[in-house]
Amino acid sequence: IPFLYRVIWALKSKGIEYEYIEEDLSNKSELLLKYNPVHKKIPMLLHNGKPVAESMIILEYIDETWPEHPLLPKDAQERATARFWAKFAEDKGICVWKFFHSRGEEQEEEAKKEILEMLRSREEHGLGEKKFLGGDTIGLVDLAFFVVAHWLGVIEDARGVKLLEAQKFPRLDAWIHDFKEVGVIKENLPDPEKMFAFFKRKREMILASA
Amino acid sequence: IPFLYRVIWALKSKGIEYEYIEEDLSNKSELLLKYNPVHKKIPMLLHNGKPVAESMIILEYIDETWPEHPLLPKDAQERATARFWAKFAEDKGICVWKFFHSRGEEQEEEAKKEILEMLRSREEHGLGEKKFLGGDTIGLVDLAFFVVAHWLGVIEDARGVKLLEAQKFPRLDAWIHDFKEVGVIKENLPDPEKMFAFFKRKREMILASA
Repeated sequence: IPFLYRVIWALKSKGIEYEYIEEDLSNKSELLLKYNPVHKKIPMLLHNGKPVAESMIILEYIDETWPEHPLLPKDAQERATARFWAKFAEDKGICVWKFFHSRGEEQEEEAKKEILEMLRSREEHGLGEKKFLGGDTIGLVDLAFFVVAHWLGVIEDARGVKLLEAQKFPRLDAWIHDFKEVGVIKENLPDPEKMFAFFKRKREMILASA
Repeated sequence: IPFLYRVIWALKSKGIEYEYIEEDLSNKSELLLKYNPVHKKIPMLLHNGKPVAESMIILEYIDETWPEHPLLPKDAQERATARFWAKFAEDKGICVWKFFHSRGEEQEEEAKKEILEMLRSREEHGLGEKKFLGGDTIGLVDLAFFVVAHWLGVIEDARGVKLLEAQKFPRLDAWIHDFKEVGVIKENLPDPEKMFAFFKRKREMILASA
């Protein structure tokens, strides 16, 4: 579900109207199986009767199809930098789920270490003087990384630890703050209480199955 | 090193001249540490004094900067499909290295299973009637996936097993055959004997450190 929000925020930030079809992942629809037979996952975008799968690829598709309020910079080198950090969020972000699912001290410490390395890289190399990577408007990287950072926050709460401390990562902290203040994000954040309850329950299930 | 070939083949297929700087990964150069401080990995492309890292992002950069002999289709939906399969090769391709590094029967069987699933998905959903995904010319997906398939072949030889059997994966097999026949690939394939010796030696080191 987290990655769905990348797509929702991108569509909203561009003012594109869409119909939202809820998918029951415990009982996948024929629509999903037909249009994403490889991964059978959401999010999936249907446009002109054709499917686009994978959240980051959907964002590139949205940006090419509706170029107003661009998500990627015009300059090829800046685009490559944006894609670099988007891929970084995709590849490294997995450690957040690893942490959530970790069992036993060893697994947990390893996942924590990976999360801190990820945050450190982003803090030191990824955040410049601009408010967002695209300048003053949110772009591909913000959408890619915010999902990771936001869900990390919820998972920290559900697990009762704090990894993303403001004094250790001041730039990241400021960026998260600014991002949440953007109108289209503020109005379309998932309900924090529901998220917390969901992860809390899921974590208990993981521990119970030990 | 495998991922380097994606970039070499892309540059060659577009006829772009470049200077190749060998990198000693056991003693990384200042150039690499300066320009790819996050991953400190090759391949890295330097153009107009600015760096582009990550093989698949370099390919997108090359395609945007030198649009002749395109690597991606023009149509947005077809581009999304190409990116989907390129990402698939990136994400799933890891199982080939997992197999190479696996120790003990359990690890090995798990990695083998993942490889067969990957090949099956590609065989069933990824290969259409066209010779290459871009039609008759090689494109982003071919470059992304061939590296995986080609190194799988070498690793199979080094490990003495055969996973990519022609009778099980006839389309994949035909595609690999056709791809190797493309002039620019044929002339720029890494030396198979050196590759075999390299992986054989590396595998022995893995087993020796058990």
